[in-house]
Amino acid sequence: GEDHSYSLTNGTTSAELLRKLNEQRDIIALMEIKMKEMKSTIHQLRVTEARLHEEVRERDRMLSAAAALRKKV
Amino acid sequence: GEDHSYSLTNGTTSAELLRKLNEQRDIIALMEIKMKEMKSTIHQLRVTEARLHEEVRERDRMLSAAAALRKKV
Repeated sequence: GEDHSYSLTNGTTSAELLRKLNEQRDIIALMEIKMKEMKSTIHQLRVTEARLHEEVRERDRMLSAAAALRKKV
Repeated sequence: GEDHSYSLTNGTTSAELLRKLNEQRDIIALMEIKMKEMKSTIHQLRVTEARLHEEVRERDRMLSAAAALRKKV
């Protein structure tokens, strides 16, 4: 891929580098917040998935029971 | 909160700043990959959730039909 490395060849000043460093630090902080939110969303979705699987199983048991009942009748 | 801003007060050299800048850039690249994976996971989980909701509804319809049948018999 491309090389996005920063270099001093274009005569970047320390102040400029420092500004970029703090910009990137802010980006990292925002990304960390976003990732925490996404982790929480994934956790909630997994909990919901487990609950829905259980609801499907419960209804399958009820359907089996209803089918058994009809055989008796 | 605390102030994690980088500053020049400790006499950091340009080379040092540059090294930190490239370190941060690598961290951001890794976080972007991780976020892409998490987005994909969230999408898959939402698809699964929709499918399971439909499975529950389908079984509820079957249970209603079974109950209606038993009333007739």
